[in-house]
Amino acid sequence: MIVILKNEADSQKVEILRQWLENQNVEIHKSVGEYTTVWGLVGDTSRIDADLIEGLEIVEGVRRISEPYKQANRKFHPNDTVIDLGGSVKLGAGNFQFFAGPCSVESEEQIIEIAKSVKEAGANVLRGGAFKPRTSPYAFQGMRSDGLKLLIEAKEITGMPIVSEIMDASHIDLFEDVDIIQVGARNMQNFELLKQLGKLDKPIFLKRGLCATIDELLMSAEYIMAGGNEKVILCERGIRTFEPAARNTLDLSAVPILKEKTHLPVVVDPSHASGIARLVKPLSYAAAACGADGLMIEVHNNPQQALCDGPQALTPDKFAEVAKGVQKILNALK
Amino acid sequence: MIVILKNEADSQKVEILRQWLENQNVEIHKSVGEYTTVWGLVGDTSRIDADLIEGLEIVEGVRRISEPYKQANRKFHPNDTVIDLGGSVKLGAGNFQFFAGPCSVESEEQIIEIAKSVKEAGANVLRGGAFKPRTSPYAFQGMRSDGLKLLIEAKEITGMPIVSEIMDASHIDLFEDVDIIQVGARNMQNFELLKQLGKLDKPIFLKRGLCATIDELLMSAEYIMAGGNEKVILCERGIRTFEPAARNTLDLSAVPILKEKTHLPVVVDPSHASGIARLVKPLSYAAAACGADGLMIEVHNNPQQALCDGPQALTPDKFAEVAKGVQKILNALK
Amino acid sequence: MIVILKNEADSQKVEILRQWLENQNVEIHKSVGEYTTVWGLVGDTSRIDADLIEGLEIVEGVRRISEPYKQANRKFHPNDTVIDLGGSVKLGAGNFQFFAGPCSVESEEQIIEIAKSVKEAGANVLRGGAFKPRTSPYAFQGMRSDGLKLLIEAKEITGMPIVSEIMDASHIDLFEDVDIIQVGARNMQNFELLKQLGKLDKPIFLKRGLCATIDELLMSAEYIMAGGNEKVILCERGIRTFEPAARNTLDLSAVPILKEKTHLPVVVDPSHASGIARLVKPLSYAAAACGADGLMIEVHNNPQQALCDGPQALTPDKFAEVAKGVQKILNALK
Amino acid sequence: MIVILKNEADSQKVEILRQWLENQNVEIHKSVGEYTTVWGLVGDTSRIDADLIEGLEIVEGVRRISEPYKQANRKFHPNDTVIDLGGSVKLGAGNFQFFAGPCSVESEEQIIEIAKSVKEAGANVLRGGAFKPRTSPYAFQGMRSDGLKLLIEAKEITGMPIVSEIMDASHIDLFEDVDIIQVGARNMQNFELLKQLGKLDKPIFLKRGLCATIDELLMSAEYIMAGGNEKVILCERGIRTFEPAARNTLDLSAVPILKEKTHLPVVVDPSHASGIARLVKPLSYAAAACGADGLMIEVHNNPQQALCDGPQALTPDKFAEVAKGVQKILNALK
Repeated sequence: MIVILKNEADSQKVEILRQWLENQNVEIHKSVGEYTTVWGLVGDTSRIDADLIEGLEIVEGVRRISEPYKQANRKFHPNDTVIDLGGSVKLGAGNFQFFAGPCSVESEEQIIEIAKSVKEAGANVLRGGAFKPRTSPYAFQGMRSDGLKLLIEAKEITGMPIVSEIMDASHIDLFEDVDIIQVGARNMQNFELLKQLGKLDKPIFLKRGLCATIDELLMSAEYIMAGGNEKVILCERGIRTFEPAARNTLDLSAVPILKEKTHLPVVVDPSHASGIARLVKPLSYAAAACGADGLMIEVHNNPQQALCDGPQALTPDKFAEVAKGVQKILNALK
Repeated sequence: MIVILKNEADSQKVEILRQWLENQNVEIHKSVGEYTTVWGLVGDTSRIDADLIEGLEIVEGVRRISEPYKQANRKFHPNDTVIDLGGSVKLGAGNFQFFAGPCSVESEEQIIEIAKSVKEAGANVLRGGAFKPRTSPYAFQGMRSDGLKLLIEAKEITGMPIVSEIMDASHIDLFEDVDIIQVGARNMQNFELLKQLGKLDKPIFLKRGLCATIDELLMSAEYIMAGGNEKVILCERGIRTFEPAARNTLDLSAVPILKEKTHLPVVVDPSHASGIARLVKPLSYAAAACGADGLMIEVHNNPQQALCDGPQALTPDKFAEVAKGVQKILNALK
Repeated sequence: MIVILKNEADSQKVEILRQWLENQNVEIHKSVGEYTTVWGLVGDTSRIDADLIEGLEIVEGVRRISEPYKQANRKFHPNDTVIDLGGSVKLGAGNFQFFAGPCSVESEEQIIEIAKSVKEAGANVLRGGAFKPRTSPYAFQGMRSDGLKLLIEAKEITGMPIVSEIMDASHIDLFEDVDIIQVGARNMQNFELLKQLGKLDKPIFLKRGLCATIDELLMSAEYIMAGGNEKVILCERGIRTFEPAARNTLDLSAVPILKEKTHLPVVVDPSHASGIARLVKPLSYAAAACGADGLMIEVHNNPQQALCDGPQALTPDKFAEVAKGVQKILNALK
Repeated sequence: MIVILKNEADSQKVEILRQWLENQNVEIHKSVGEYTTVWGLVGDTSRIDADLIEGLEIVEGVRRISEPYKQANRKFHPNDTVIDLGGSVKLGAGNFQFFAGPCSVESEEQIIEIAKSVKEAGANVLRGGAFKPRTSPYAFQGMRSDGLKLLIEAKEITGMPIVSEIMDASHIDLFEDVDIIQVGARNMQNFELLKQLGKLDKPIFLKRGLCATIDELLMSAEYIMAGGNEKVILCERGIRTFEPAARNTLDLSAVPILKEKTHLPVVVDPSHASGIARLVKPLSYAAAACGADGLMIEVHNNPQQALCDGPQALTPDKFAEVAKGVQKILNALK
């Protein structure tokens, strides 16, 4: 970390800062220039809060050299992490996977039918929402624990591992037979939840918040990993911008940037990002072409009729077509 | 709600939509034009999900006429809500209040000294963080339940009501003696937490999320109110934009817009919004001038020394100056 | 266009609006509901300003059914436009092209050497900046007309058509021998310039503004086309968001959205969008995979030494590698 | 300027950078740490392009200590600039002024009637658009030179100085009798136009671009000042964010931030920022309270009838009310 002191900095306050930093076991290398003094901090600066120092009256600026995330950092773990998703399905380091299924679990018949059809179309993991984060308290909140039971039934029938979203740490027990626990965009910085998930030995599917920076996403992964659970899957699902043409703006630059910064697998969710079924195919192709490790795609057996999934869900047939196209791109780039 | 159907809409799918809407107890008024058909939906459309309908292949667009929030809506509650904050301090309808105190509770000495000084300087409510949402798992996470105890002690000594942030529904019991529970920006859409807070009989201080729209803030208030707790205080604390000069961009237009849309009191937090102590005074003046019902301001007894609060905290003296200036503006506009 | 009137709208003002609309040769289809009255406007509503009507006190909202752009609209021109770039190079409808070259023309030797090497590596059009829009008045402003002359020389030697940026309408004469005129992101809404370019018979390479919506980009294309010049090439080059990891956020969703809305060709510029040479390859692959008609890529013969182009420029070798990979993806998706 | 080199930087490339910097008359102060080497650059670094250096492979990061704007910089001109607007009206350093008038000049009767009524209501400068930047080529483009003539007539009758927007450098001659030339948000980075305006001896009213940072606004001012024209008025008029409730998000933090960074006067335009007449009063009060030097407000004699100005224009009566309220706040804060 580099701390740039102001020219006219009060020497007493500078001394207080110096002592405080040294108490944190950080060594200071000074460089005194004509207009500014620069301190290079050497040691474990990941626990030092750059914002706090930057706010001090005597400080002109702070710049991190080493990132504040350690366990998620590729510098310290150069090789791609491979995560076992259950049922011998692996993700990362060239193992590309499709997470497919309906937005919400609606009935036994629905989830089992979709599970079978997405499996046949090439999906490796079944997704389905039981606890649904809805903007309105009056909207359908999901089948909750009953939904999880139906999802587990679909897993038993098809043999596919399942992923479903958790909304509160107090529900963790209900997810015992769920292979992968999803943290939604709105809970990406629900730190108490992240801490509890860090105690599990189960893959966590962590979605980027709507206005979270890439570094903040990595810091949230770090929360889970700091607790001992290293099985974190990162998911780019669109950020909020001024552009109204799609629901959110899919940030595909985040894929190669994340692949540089971290060894964790990166999955892209074009269905939620765009909110428009017609965009799922081109955006899936783009995600695969720029290095994503997988795709999460909403599939419904009857998007026209199902009012709850219509906008962004594909039919199983359409999903099969997307999966084939993605495979062609992956083969071409091998 | 107005639903605009596409010109070439498949009549069978239109019929399915018609039936589905009528099953929701909504009456449809049709208007057939040359190029489009418009349906006016009459009835309680607050439970109808506009996004879902908008996504249907046969629909050109949807426009809400009535807002999806009912209890927070000024249309149905024209008069300003006045909230009793404890200790006979009232907020709203002309009752302007200062919420002041340190970012974090650090020690008994610190919190009691600050409490006394902000009270003397004109503050009506003491703020202090015990559970701290920090981006990094390695940063100080607050004194947690011990911090709450010290805050309660400061309340007993000074007689000021207190406000502190909650981070997980499982901590609610710890807040029994806390007068006002704060929901931070990162938890604004932690819907499970909001539901639990809706069961309490205690003011909830709800901060706007970093990328939450004004309507989403109102929907989160609606979550609390739908549970029976009508004592919701809304707080504008800056949104995330492209501008790097301050930490966030304080959206003061939100104040008059919220005052039109809702009867709930609106408080502004210039300290967290800007992250820069020097901006707190002008932004406090602006907030008071455009109709805010109160200000939440970070105050520390020794900002220079306290590394944890430096950037955005005022000294008690500086806070007293701000409070006086705000009072002048309020008087001038009476 | 649909105009939704307020429930309590003053009938005299409603009458004024009715007369005004009918004077614009627009027919009104009324639909009176319990809570609102909806007017469907039939006729050429492209000249009606939706914002102005929306702002009237008596209006609840306005929604366009037909887009305000006509000549750029795919509805009225279903087939892809193919643009002749010069030298028998065509763009659009399956004709994919690489626009490559340095950020700035620096010297005769530099531009000719790069021109030869990008041609060999697979580029079809040579790019090179002569007039440079720089944030600082003290930064290098380009070689201006001398730069254009060197670019034209490189065209004569290699036979490649050339593209260069214009910054003011008064410079149009200098571009007589330039095949394609580029309008930079900062001038996307320099309407006087667009009007002048609309009078030419020459392809215009129109870059999306940093905070321009997709519809605004199309309206700027419409400015050029309304003047009679239908040869407009649209370019997505990143938008400004809160994410600091890359210079801008490349909005690849814009590619399939534009391909739906318009018949004009769409090119992606990953070099300027990201500002990072390492991201050019994955983002180029993604752009090709999601349907772009071409790529504009910065190439320099010695990026390490050339201080002016370093960050985002590829070497010719690296560019050749990108061009080959893109070709593989295009072949796989045929 | 501080340049932080990478640990593993190639020594030959470092040497090239060193020589290049020294050729720019910049002295390098080195500080070699365990993990990084830091160079402090001393001299006139305003002409050094930080982005270019930051992009070099061998560089970890760059941080400016001195701002790239000199003439606009308060460090070098500590006292507020006072600008003579014509007719003995002064702006800045405590001279607060109202710029009021219609969005567009529509007719002789209209502009003269409004001019008289805003003068009576307390305005000091008359605004009126003759050249109108419109998103659509089919929308009313203003009365152009005829509009300027009517505006000049209104000036002669009322004695008020006038301000009007320029859209192209070739129109400068038409503005000879216009006291203040406005550069609109869309042309803030039309650098060729700024250069031409820098040659005049006339106040320039420079509006912040929709997605321009505060520093970019100052750099555009610097373009004008570098040409010799120091009479630049900065105008905050809202930035583009994700929030749809108002047209743009008025960034009032920009006012105190600009007042710190520059000696130039800062005016706020709440009419265009919000696009909603009802918000003009509270936002004007807020702007005055946080230190703005003036307000630009749209006033129309018959907002209900005039379809072109309706949404954001006040009646003269309403404007008089706002002007009085603003005066009360200014008096209270004296």
